Order: sequence, then C-alpha cells, then structure tokens
Amino acid sequence: MATATIIDGKSFAARLRTGITAQITQLKADHGITPGLAVVLVGEDPASQIYVRNKGRQARETGMNSFEQRLPVTASQTELLACIAGLNQDPAVNGILVQLPLPKQINPEAVIEAIAVSKDVDGFHPLNAGLLAVGGAAMVPCTPLGCLMLLKDQLGDLAGKRAVVLGRSNIVGKPMAALLLREHCTVTMAHSRTRDLAAECRRAEIVVAAVGRPEMVKGDWLQPGATVIDVGINRLPTPDGKGRLVGDVEFASAVEVAGAITPVPGGVGPMTIACLLLNTLTAACRQHGIPVPEIKPAAE
Amino acid sequence: MATATIIDGKSFAARLRTGITAQITQLKADHGITPGLAVVLVGEDPASQIYVRNKGRQARETGMNSFEQRLPVTASQTELLACIAGLNQDPAVNGILVQLPLPKQINPEAVIEAIAVSKDVDGFHPLNAGLLAVGGAAMVPCTPLGCLMLLKDQLGDLAGKRAVVLGRSNIVGKPMAALLLREHCTVTMAHSRTRDLAAECRRAEIVVAAVGRPEMVKGDWLQPGATVIDVGINRLPTPDGKGRLVGDVEFASAVEVAGAITPVPGGVGPMTIACLLLNTLTAACRQHGIPVPEIKPAAE
Repeated sequence: MATATIIDGKSFAARLRTGITAQITQLKADHGITPGLAVVLVGEDPASQIYVRNKGRQARETGMNSFEQRLPVTASQTELLACIAGLNQDPAVNGILVQLPLPKQINPEAVIEAIAVSKDVDGFHPLNAGLLAVGGAAMVPCTPLGCLMLLKDQLGDLAGKRAVVLGRSNIVGKPMAALLLREHCTVTMAHSRTRDLAAECRRAEIVVAAVGRPEMVKGDWLQPGATVIDVGINRLPTPDGKGRLVGDVEFASAVEVAGAITPVPGGVGPMTIACLLLNTLTAACRQHGIPVPEIKPAAE
Repeated sequence: MATATIIDGKSFAARLRTGITAQITQLKADHGITPGLAVVLVGEDPASQIYVRNKGRQARETGMNSFEQRLPVTASQTELLACIAGLNQDPAVNGILVQLPLPKQINPEAVIEAIAVSKDVDGFHPLNAGLLAVGGAAMVPCTPLGCLMLLKDQLGDLAGKRAVVLGRSNIVGKPMAALLLREHCTVTMAHSRTRDLAAECRRAEIVVAAVGRPEMVKGDWLQPGATVIDVGINRLPTPDGKGRLVGDVEFASAVEVAGAITPVPGGVGPMTIACLLLNTLTAACRQHGIPVPEIKPAAE
C-alpha cells in the first residue's frame, strides 16, 4: 500500500523561525524597531511555566525582546487587568499573551477582551475573531495559522478543495474554518453532534482534526490521498507509566491511506509557537505603520 | 409527485411583529422604557428611501420610537461619523442602522465600525461578527436571524442536521453558517469556487441559498424532503417591462422535491425588518440590564 508523506512540522517551524529572524534583523536595520512579546503567567502551574519559558526563549532567539510578567496564583482579576493595561500602554510591547488556564477567581473572557486588539497575538479577542470572519486585518490564532501554512506548503493553492474541520473550538476549529474559507475551500464544520463523522471525513481532500479524542480518526475514514492535519495532543497511559503522545488521528492506519499527514509529536505542535512569533512581528509592523513583510520559511 | 410545504414568511413575520409589540407594551409598563431605532440615510436613492420609510413605519407600529436622520448625498465621512457619534451618545436611541449603500466618498467599513457595538442592530460590526463566532452576546445580522427562525419553526431541533450555506457574504452566508453551527448542525460553506455545488446541495437536509444568482439551484440539486431557504431577490426582465422577482432557487422544480421551501417574494424578505425590530428590542433590554425576553410569534 501507499504510504503518506510525513509533514515535518518541526523542520518547517525551524525554517519559519529562521525567516522571522531575518526579517527582525531587517526591521532593526531599516527602522530601529525591535518587536517585543510580553507573556503573563498567573500562578505556578508546571506545564504553563514550561510553555512560558519556551515562548520567551524562542522569542529571544529570533532577536525579539521578551518580557515576562508573573503574578501569584492568588492574584485578583483587577490585578491582572491592571497588569494588562500597563502592557497595552507600553510601546516596547507589541504582543501580549496571557497564559491559559487562569485561576478560578479570574474570568478568562474579561481578560482576553482587555488585551489591546492590535497586541492580541493569540488572536483570541472577539474583535479579532470577527475581523478574521469578515476579511479584515485580524490577528489570527496561532495553531490554525500554523496548520494553514503546512497545508499551503504541501498543496499549494487550496481553492476549490473540499476541507473538513473536526471540532469547533474558538481557538482552533472555528478560526481554521474561517481561514480555509478565505483560501476558497469548500469547508464543512463537523463536531460531536455530527451524525456520521466518518462519512464527512471520507469526502474531504483536507482533514483537520481538532477534537481532543485520542486516535478517533481511523484510516478508513479517509479518502486515498487526503492531506491530514492532526492538531490533537493526547497522552495515553503505558505500562511503564511514562505515557505515549498520540493525536486525534490513528496514525498507523491513516498513514496507509492519506497522501500526507502530520505526525504527533513533531507536526502541528512546533508551528504554534513559531506562529506566535510571526504574529508578534506582524503586530509590531502594523503598530508602526510598516508594511507587513511576507515571511517565507528559509530553504531546507 | 410530492409538493413542498410553502413557508409563509410574510405571515410568520407579521406574527413575530405582534409578539414584539406585546413585549414592548410590557417593557413600557414594567420599566417605563420605549425602545428607539434610528435610521440614517445619506442621499436620495429611491429604493433606500422606501426601505428607510418601511423600517420607520414598522418600528412605530410595534410601539417603538423611530428616528430618521438624513444627510445630503454630498455629506462627508466626517459629517456622517459625527452624526453616528451623536446617536451613540443618545440614551433614547437603542438601535442605529445606516442604510447602505453609501455614496462613494464614504468608507462603509469605517462607518460600521463607528456604530456602538451594543446599538449595532444590523449586526455588521466586526466585534458582533466575532461575538457571534465565539458564542457571546452578539447582535446577529437580521436576514440570517430571520432564516434561522423560519428553519426552527419548520424543523424544531436542528442538531445533527446537515446544512449547506450557498454564498459566503459577511451579511448573510457567514453569519448564517455561524448560527447553524450554534444550533449543532453539520455545516458546509459552499460558494463560487466550490467544484460541484449540486453535489454539496444534494447531501443537505437544509439548504440556504444566498448567492444572488437567479434560479441557480434546481430541483435536481435537492435531496427529497430538504428544507430550502431562498435568500435571493433577483429581478428578471419580462416583455411588459415590469420584471419578475425570482430567488436563487428555481422554485417550480424545487417545490416538487423539497419538503419545505420559502417563496420569493413572501419568504425571507419580510423576516429581515421583523428581525431588525427584534434586535432593537434586544438592544434596549441589554442596554438597560433587563433580561431579554424570548419573543414567540403570536399564534396564527
């Protein structure tokens, strides 16, 4: 049987970061501007600390300034909003990211809506969701933006292709559908209430799985040659207790049918932070009225 | 052959207005509040004048206050924005609608974005588009809201149904898809770049046609029993010069296959102004912190 092309998101993300680094060098040389990314962490959650550290490190590696604001787990919503207000005002800060999840006493919607729309590099503000929908200058959520870049790298022009998005979260599924529609795909949104998910998948040339259910999509759900983007990151228990990371797609069966597929890990995951850096660069350019450069990943 | 139920939008809209009238009476009695709708017309376009007059008359018939602001066709964008700023500030005005199209010297996006989000009863502000997408308290565009009401009246619970939306405009297609997704439909967005529109239609239990192409959707594009909502209003030339209104669906062939279908005229059209009044009532309640009543159309 045919075996799919494995889409190397880790390599693509590295090349994208190289492209971003080059543009930041240019931006400093031409305009004396160094983009700045501020990451806000409330509390001591170990996983969140790792994410925040990685974001800061990768930002600095591209030549950006990285700012980290830490608040105690007991911080009130008012304190967090005051922190965000300060970052909104700070001209050295072009992008603001509040690491989720937040402690229970804080309403995440209120926090997201407090971030200046132009600095909302996560693209979670409802105005950015609306600008994406209506075709304006949105900040686009990082994970679906990364998925789109992988798809375009793999397939070229997406116009007219039938795409199915499995899952309808605000941070992946819905913005992914909006992006694919913008690329002129025929887009189907499927989800937990869809009657026959397998049948919807089988019609699609592009499948984006973002449901958070380990290995739900089987090889026989796919049409031969489909391009499969697996956003899921699920940890399955193993006898040795270490666990095993799997996506929302059953890789072993899917790889025999698909034309191309992202692995987990090493597929979509590395694209998310790379697109966060891309969004920060975009935000810095827009805030300074500089045309946003088209970033190409560096050659392999 | 079977013949479809004809969905009587004109009657439904009339009963909806009766329900709105009752709620406005209640709102006056309980809270001393009379909702107010302001319609802004720039220039002398005859069709726009008719629309504006109808909106004002229907608003008054439900017991609302109706305000009309007229600017000359030569008005500058600055003048229009000043007019909107005044209406944004006016506590007697709960809903603001700027009649489109606008003269060439005025950028419609700038105008739409200047309307206070809470008074944007057309639901065209990108923040309202985003709130609809993420599940917040949006003002929903009137035409798709009307289509949804007709669908729920006809079909009851929509969860799990396969729906196709033909057309991806910001004022009908995209918000329609968001509404159907919120109702847990499996939603396909199809459009001019879709490779096989007929095949997409044939899979759907719900077809919403909003493409502006006269009689494009034929009966043999439909699955037997499908519910068809025809948003199109196109005027075809006739020998007598009066023209003939047709929808985006070829009614004569569709009515033989569909389970239910809206006629043109008398289907979706009358729902649009009724939903504008509904939005104005909703806006007034939200602005006063009063729970938004569930409006049911009056009994037949």
